[in-house]
Amino acid sequence: MRLGVLTSGGDCPGLNAVIRAVVRTASNEFGDTVVGYEDGWVGLMEDRRRDLYDDAEIDRILLRGGTILGTGRLHPDKFKAGLDQIKSNMADAGVDALVAIGGEGTLKGAKWLSDNGVPVVGVPKTIDNDVNATDYTFGFDTAVSVATDAIDRLHTTAESHNRILIVEVMGRHVGWIALHAGMAGGAHYTVVPEEPFDIAEITKAMERRFQMGEKYGIICVAEGALPKEGTMDFEAGGVDQFGHQTFNGIGQVIGDEIKARTGYDVRTTVLGHIQRGGTPTAYDRVLATRYGVHAARAIHEGKSGMCVALHGEDIDLVPLEEAVGTLKTVPESRYRNAQALFG
Amino acid sequence: MRLGVLTSGGDCPGLNAVIRAVVRTASNEFGDTVVGYEDGWVGLMEDRRRDLYDDAEIDRILLRGGTILGTGRLHPDKFKAGLDQIKSNMADAGVDALVAIGGEGTLKGAKWLSDNGVPVVGVPKTIDNDVNATDYTFGFDTAVSVATDAIDRLHTTAESHNRILIVEVMGRHVGWIALHAGMAGGAHYTVVPEEPFDIAEITKAMERRFQMGEKYGIICVAEGALPKEGTMDFEAGGVDQFGHQTFNGIGQVIGDEIKARTGYDVRTTVLGHIQRGGTPTAYDRVLATRYGVHAARAIHEGKSGMCVALHGEDIDLVPLEEAVGTLKTVPESRYRNAQALFG
Amino acid sequence: MRLGVLTSGGDCPGLNAVIRAVVRTASNEFGDTVVGYEDGWVGLMEDRRRDLYDDAEIDRILLRGGTILGTGRLHPDKFKAGLDQIKSNMADAGVDALVAIGGEGTLKGAKWLSDNGVPVVGVPKTIDNDVNATDYTFGFDTAVSVATDAIDRLHTTAESHNRILIVEVMGRHVGWIALHAGMAGGAHYTVVPEEPFDIAEITKAMERRFQMGEKYGIICVAEGALPKEGTMDFEAGGVDQFGHQTFNGIGQVIGDEIKARTGYDVRTTVLGHIQRGGTPTAYDRVLATRYGVHAARAIHEGKSGMCVALHGEDIDLVPLEEAVGTLKTVPESRYRNAQALFG
Amino acid sequence: MRLGVLTSGGDCPGLNAVIRAVVRTASNEFGDTVVGYEDGWVGLMEDRRRDLYDDAEIDRILLRGGTILGTGRLHPDKFKAGLDQIKSNMADAGVDALVAIGGEGTLKGAKWLSDNGVPVVGVPKTIDNDVNATDYTFGFDTAVSVATDAIDRLHTTAESHNRILIVEVMGRHVGWIALHAGMAGGAHYTVVPEEPFDIAEITKAMERRFQMGEKYGIICVAEGALPKEGTMDFEAGGVDQFGHQTFNGIGQVIGDEIKARTGYDVRTTVLGHIQRGGTPTAYDRVLATRYGVHAARAIHEGKSGMCVALHGEDIDLVPLEEAVGTLKTVPESRYRNAQALFG
Repeated sequence: MRLGVLTSGGDCPGLNAVIRAVVRTASNEFGDTVVGYEDGWVGLMEDRRRDLYDDAEIDRILLRGGTILGTGRLHPDKFKAGLDQIKSNMADAGVDALVAIGGEGTLKGAKWLSDNGVPVVGVPKTIDNDVNATDYTFGFDTAVSVATDAIDRLHTTAESHNRILIVEVMGRHVGWIALHAGMAGGAHYTVVPEEPFDIAEITKAMERRFQMGEKYGIICVAEGALPKEGTMDFEAGGVDQFGHQTFNGIGQVIGDEIKARTGYDVRTTVLGHIQRGGTPTAYDRVLATRYGVHAARAIHEGKSGMCVALHGEDIDLVPLEEAVGTLKTVPESRYRNAQALFG
Repeated sequence: MRLGVLTSGGDCPGLNAVIRAVVRTASNEFGDTVVGYEDGWVGLMEDRRRDLYDDAEIDRILLRGGTILGTGRLHPDKFKAGLDQIKSNMADAGVDALVAIGGEGTLKGAKWLSDNGVPVVGVPKTIDNDVNATDYTFGFDTAVSVATDAIDRLHTTAESHNRILIVEVMGRHVGWIALHAGMAGGAHYTVVPEEPFDIAEITKAMERRFQMGEKYGIICVAEGALPKEGTMDFEAGGVDQFGHQTFNGIGQVIGDEIKARTGYDVRTTVLGHIQRGGTPTAYDRVLATRYGVHAARAIHEGKSGMCVALHGEDIDLVPLEEAVGTLKTVPESRYRNAQALFG
Repeated sequence: MRLGVLTSGGDCPGLNAVIRAVVRTASNEFGDTVVGYEDGWVGLMEDRRRDLYDDAEIDRILLRGGTILGTGRLHPDKFKAGLDQIKSNMADAGVDALVAIGGEGTLKGAKWLSDNGVPVVGVPKTIDNDVNATDYTFGFDTAVSVATDAIDRLHTTAESHNRILIVEVMGRHVGWIALHAGMAGGAHYTVVPEEPFDIAEITKAMERRFQMGEKYGIICVAEGALPKEGTMDFEAGGVDQFGHQTFNGIGQVIGDEIKARTGYDVRTTVLGHIQRGGTPTAYDRVLATRYGVHAARAIHEGKSGMCVALHGEDIDLVPLEEAVGTLKTVPESRYRNAQALFG
Repeated sequence: MRLGVLTSGGDCPGLNAVIRAVVRTASNEFGDTVVGYEDGWVGLMEDRRRDLYDDAEIDRILLRGGTILGTGRLHPDKFKAGLDQIKSNMADAGVDALVAIGGEGTLKGAKWLSDNGVPVVGVPKTIDNDVNATDYTFGFDTAVSVATDAIDRLHTTAESHNRILIVEVMGRHVGWIALHAGMAGGAHYTVVPEEPFDIAEITKAMERRFQMGEKYGIICVAEGALPKEGTMDFEAGGVDQFGHQTFNGIGQVIGDEIKARTGYDVRTTVLGHIQRGGTPTAYDRVLATRYGVHAARAIHEGKSGMCVALHGEDIDLVPLEEAVGTLKTVPESRYRNAQALFG
């Protein structure tokens, strides 16, 4: 049998670990061969591919961030228009089935391909942890670790200077990174997109700290955080694809407002791209590797239209439609638990 | 209400995160007060305690390895003989219920106390991840991370010198650390206590690597690994509490045998105590914090004889008897999956 | 004898290591006692102090970022006006001499105090490494390490997405952090304040990379970087205390210009405060500790108006006037060496 | 011009950074070409070489531990007997001069070659920092960092269990790693080969800690540590090449003796190979890169019999005879300074 593998969408630590596990499992267990398509769906349509062997190069990519195959984005219409091309490219290369590693959009594409006669197994990938049907996605733990390391460093600076430090982390639509990094980093308040914030409440929490003798505070803010309607009067940054108002630089906005209301020394830092690159954590390498092993097996067993997923201690296969459609958001109960630690 | 909290058994990253979360939740949510007992059950019996306030000190222990309360071990007979003393100490201090943080032995003690009229909620703790009824224990991710970092470093040394490097990791009875660190570190063979090893098979795997052009190999060995009966003729180190033969320095034993059989340059390194100390990973801080929040709430709700546990994305309460009695071992299927990556 | 110690100016990893070494050396070697003044010169003038003992607390601060004494800034005029107050506060507390840990401004203050009859030994401190008369300052290695870790992570993201990534690091007046982090992180171009940049040359270097088959580039920019006069037409951000034009967000400015000129996908990330906080590297802990040992000894030997300094393998004492007055900038030869690696 | 480059002796973080800098500088600045010889002198004699281009592969080795050229050891007699072979191999390949990266032994070989008509520039390499004529060698900072991280982790374990923990680090003949890691890690006693230890004094220091209320201690021991003559009655492990008695597992020996004398719970951990492998620190990457730049230039300028060396802030060229012959040991004054922090 012959597998094609591709990575699509944003960069994410652990992509290479999946590729490595797919190649090694296909080769070791079944003698299957593997072809890698470059730059996601685009490379599949343009037939840009190379053979991936179970060799020294593949063995050593486990630690590398990014993806050796490159990644890309393709408009769904162009993608759908290319179905025949995809089929003929795969036939020419003798590729029987695909492992598609990507986020929401990629998995939707995988489902559509599968519905249209191309065998595909999906592997969910996102540092945001917003894919339904799986407990966690690889890349998320690395992003949380990087953000937590940063918050650890900010504590002593804030404390030495009697400052409030706002740290803005990734998460445009869901607050998983903010929730976990805020909890792991001991932030004194955390703001997530799922729970519109009340600036008065945040300010009060900081004031309470100073009244109790503390002289600093750390606030962890997801980039997609939004104020409760009517509580803050500032200019919106626009409207996103979901119809939500967005505020560019919400961390800075919150910081400015707290400073204006309290007179405290407030600074904001935006973590940015360092959250999504580099060597994956051990946790993400294990999860990505297990996904890869299971995807290679599922392909060999003739499965299609399925997605690997983590449930508790196990990796399962779930129908792709369960993984797409709605984002997995932070449930209210998780946010309530985090609040027990605020202040 | 007034809670007592204690940590018992071996050191484990995340203990302080639990203590912090218990204190903050008790104080923030319920206005409950907290007493910390020193050095585990011993301190409870000897009434060595101090008040824990939701203050600056508690806020800053999140990152610290070890336990600010100290830990200790107490023989079950002495423990049971002290029941009246424990009850009277708790009554004197006005302590209504206990949060007991510890491993198998501690949770057994917690259950016995609960059965004998002392309200206790348990929090499972072990770097070995061998507690039933929970998906994962805090401390495990940190241990795996430390071991993985070490294996990452060993790769390039082994490769530069054309060597086989054996790395012996913790795990006397279960192979979870070896399984995950071996997978995350890209070890070319992993040996766990649950699956007696065949030295001929390990040797063959290494020879295959060299035949294919690779010039080095990494083998990850749990300290409790054992050979298949009859396959190796060397002196046993003794018999452990479970009636198993033990081999002190099994990593060295395996290394010597591979060297004798192949002539390769083989070295062994034993990771030792660095696996169990120091700052917890972000993952472990989140898990430990969530355990602490839930334990404080369970106590406030009058629960006893229960243990917090991770199931998928959620923290649940399970009866303590489910958490004790048998160790959670590496299931055969997980080991089979790891084997797909060997060689 | 009785020493006073204070930390002044910006936060810097290693401050606590100096404090610890001063206290331990004073106590262990001479039986001298130590008083810590809070928040820099301000605390000295307001007589806010506490005794520092060679105890468990002091032993454990080695790893902590920030300063347990707090830090602050005081206008030179107010400082000078407070001379009598300082002398009388020191006399009241029985403090014979001071160890003043700080940057350029603090060391100037130390010199002035010494010239006016207050025995002071200075300890140079700055993450920017811009103090003359010493090879390196503690805090610098930590800042470079944090920036290098960040650049390591950005490589794979840039490569996976075929992007140019600009990383803006600290260094308003000197480019040491950019020079070292750019070199350690394998940046393909580095811009420092000492060498005004030519945007056409940077752009050409990136184009050359793409022509040679590479698909990404990393550019490390010090926040104080400036264009060669006449080469770029954009609005200045203002004029700094040295009379130089400044450009807020110079990283973004460079990125926008490269994008406009080439059409490449260019992104900018600003590392910000994470460079100056947190646990010091081993290198910085050793340097800071050695500084502390030598400062405590110098005080005991009755030295004043001197500053500890690293020269090669040794810690020396140099007159404070050698350490202040001019900033230590990146010499042209060091920048030429870095250029050998560009592209 | 055409350069040959080789790495010889033990693995060391930063070797690849030197190779990269040599290739990039030779190519960028002079248009010189570079040949890499495999496995040290052996590959030079056996003419195993490959062209090294300033390409994507070379650009990406900066972070990798080990050496892409492999390393090896060759007996001096065999080496000398191969002079004609070396000359003819170099002539055949058109190689004009060599960059030899290695420790004491390698630099001796380089000097001998240079004396016998083969142009060679040496680059000192050793994690032990025992090369004369240079302030520091690359690899040393990484080894110290790894050891310091380990000691950081051991503190909390020791403290939670009221234990004395002995950590044995590398350093058979010199104590630089122990000195710096002990100081950076806050060890309460450090033992180096240069200063024979008195077990009674170490024991007394630990007892003093416990008397003062501390409940744990960390002792950092270089593997080559030796007792003062006549102070300890235990079996020697042998005699090394310098005629010194050696004790295998000196950390364990010291631990056993302290336990016997005090009854404290004492454990020993041996760090082993993790100190010499893996990604170099930012410091080591900068030092190694600067060495490489200067070596490539020295070769191009026709220098031979010289060695690059760090002096203060600068990289100089020194005659190879200054770098070999005697090991650079820890001077007594440095050890006295460290002692100020003991206890």
